[in-house]
Amino acid sequence: MGKLVETLGKIAPVDQALMEDAQARLDNLTKPKDSLGRLEEFARKMVAITGNTKPYIDKKLIFTFAGDHGVAAEGVSAFPKEVTMQMVYNFLRGGAGINVLSRHAGAEVVVVDIGVDFEFEDAPGLVKRKVIRGTKNIRKGPAMTREEAVRCIEAGIVLAEEYGTKGSVFGTGEMGIANTTPSSAMIAAFSGLPVEEVTGRGTGIDERGFKNKVQVIEDALRVNNPDPSDPLDVLSKVGGAEIAGIAGLVIGAASMRIPVVIDGFISTAGALVAYELQPKVRDYIFASHNSVEKGHRVMLDRMGLRPFVDLDLRLGEGTGAAIAITLIEAAVKIYNEMATFGDAGVSGQNA
Amino acid sequence: MGKLVETLGKIAPVDQALMEDAQARLDNLTKPKDSLGRLEEFARKMVAITGNTKPYIDKKLIFTFAGDHGVAAEGVSAFPKEVTMQMVYNFLRGGAGINVLSRHAGAEVVVVDIGVDFEFEDAPGLVKRKVIRGTKNIRKGPAMTREEAVRCIEAGIVLAEEYGTKGSVFGTGEMGIANTTPSSAMIAAFSGLPVEEVTGRGTGIDERGFKNKVQVIEDALRVNNPDPSDPLDVLSKVGGAEIAGIAGLVIGAASMRIPVVIDGFISTAGALVAYELQPKVRDYIFASHNSVEKGHRVMLDRMGLRPFVDLDLRLGEGTGAAIAITLIEAAVKIYNEMATFGDAGVSGQNA
Repeated sequence: MGKLVETLGKIAPVDQALMEDAQARLDNLTKPKDSLGRLEEFARKMVAITGNTKPYIDKKLIFTFAGDHGVAAEGVSAFPKEVTMQMVYNFLRGGAGINVLSRHAGAEVVVVDIGVDFEFEDAPGLVKRKVIRGTKNIRKGPAMTREEAVRCIEAGIVLAEEYGTKGSVFGTGEMGIANTTPSSAMIAAFSGLPVEEVTGRGTGIDERGFKNKVQVIEDALRVNNPDPSDPLDVLSKVGGAEIAGIAGLVIGAASMRIPVVIDGFISTAGALVAYELQPKVRDYIFASHNSVEKGHRVMLDRMGLRPFVDLDLRLGEGTGAAIAITLIEAAVKIYNEMATFGDAGVSGQNA
Repeated sequence: MGKLVETLGKIAPVDQALMEDAQARLDNLTKPKDSLGRLEEFARKMVAITGNTKPYIDKKLIFTFAGDHGVAAEGVSAFPKEVTMQMVYNFLRGGAGINVLSRHAGAEVVVVDIGVDFEFEDAPGLVKRKVIRGTKNIRKGPAMTREEAVRCIEAGIVLAEEYGTKGSVFGTGEMGIANTTPSSAMIAAFSGLPVEEVTGRGTGIDERGFKNKVQVIEDALRVNNPDPSDPLDVLSKVGGAEIAGIAGLVIGAASMRIPVVIDGFISTAGALVAYELQPKVRDYIFASHNSVEKGHRVMLDRMGLRPFVDLDLRLGEGTGAAIAITLIEAAVKIYNEMATFGDAGVSGQNA
């Protein structure tokens, strides 16, 4: 708990003046004002986050946290639980969606076992930080203890500290069969919205499966009665290990002034925990894609974040974050490499 | 005219069966069905366009067509007319937005003078295909003759033939001060919608400038009375050289089964001419970004195309196309590189 409290205390708001300086430079580049839209927003945000008026990206890391969920036993997913473990091996062999998209983005995938219900041998590329062997079934009681939740968050913070250096950009991702269920439970708890409004089809359940999923989440909230004003209570009672790890990574990144690009529904639930603990983390977060999952938008609105990849993705793993990183990198290049009106001898806009 | 007619005749619809084969492969990759959303759509479209069940991209070319517009004299742009020529030099020196984003995408920029009102010396990277020295002022009469419009289109076709080989993907772009004005005039002509509904702020004019722009376009339509059932009539009377060049590039690409990614508002006007001449071109086009310009969506809907980059861009040059190409390339890599359930030993979806 000491590590978490200490790290939350280190997070400072970004410098708005730097953002204005960055925009002044952008306005002097050979293009109509604001004509590169959100790419300009990303560039000035990168300046403000890093405190560097010449921002650069030289190390792109996607952290894919894996964890199991006792609630998988309730038939809330279209896939059997062992797929979490099987997919970890797929990540390590480079055959999953996140591997392909990370290679495309020039990013490294850091695969973290934080809560899989399986004992992995040591393997190249696998970072073993297991706190629990899967959560307990939230329909019947808390997912984990408060102390376990804190240890998961702190594991994420430590990863940020171990891997992050100047010039880094982080992406978050996850793998955990059934993990849209705790994510929806968490949003319902934080927002007070009806479960049905924040619950989607996950990997692809049918109408009957959906009704069951809503019922399971309603039961979980009734049984556990999480306190929405206490983020650690919500996380430990109806969350998950990988969600907690993502919360920690976001907190760690913000404390080190490293930009962190969050993926879709589950990653955003992790980021939301970080935000509820310390709203200043928001300045360091880039939302990436607009998930098909209902409830995703509710969380982003709560944090005041606007996604920018609209490709109907719902895979998770960090795939949306990997794509988003390529666009943020494009923005940084625009900022650094475009000619100014003066340099290029181009006439400016009429007054 | 012979070249145009002949090339239109070569365009075949894509093979729907190939698209189904591609989807079958996508469904066997280690992810929930359809969970990569539009990336899956792009991959199967690439298979269908190229006829290659192992599609690849090894040559990315952005064609940035430059042309001037007599209507610039009517004060419809925030920039003076000489900026077209100045920006061509900026392209050649690599300092413009399209240069930066093309480098990011691993694409080459082909700068084409098709209608600039300036005589360029030979310069490395400049492709000289001038048909006219700018259009005439459309408020007073036709932009160009029908024969000039055809020559511009054929110049685009020839470029497609010269540059395109198997494995190519094309992007379109343009530079031409005032060219949102003819583009809006063309959409109004084709759609019959009121000018105000298809006209935007271009590079950034104020309310008074906007009212003037609408008036200029209304005058141009009244004076020229283009026939919406005759795309060459619309193009020659209220269009532009670079818009015609883009139409030709799209037609040439479709005839060679090369995918072509169109940029924003003006590029889409060019693609629309191609579509009105031969609706089958649609199968070969990827819409890229959702422009801030009103009227863009009207054209995309008319062609049944859905954009996928939503970054509030309104720069043109091909910038949206360059970004879109990176996402299409990501889709091709997903298709080619991801492991199947069988390969990876991952359990499939419950029945």
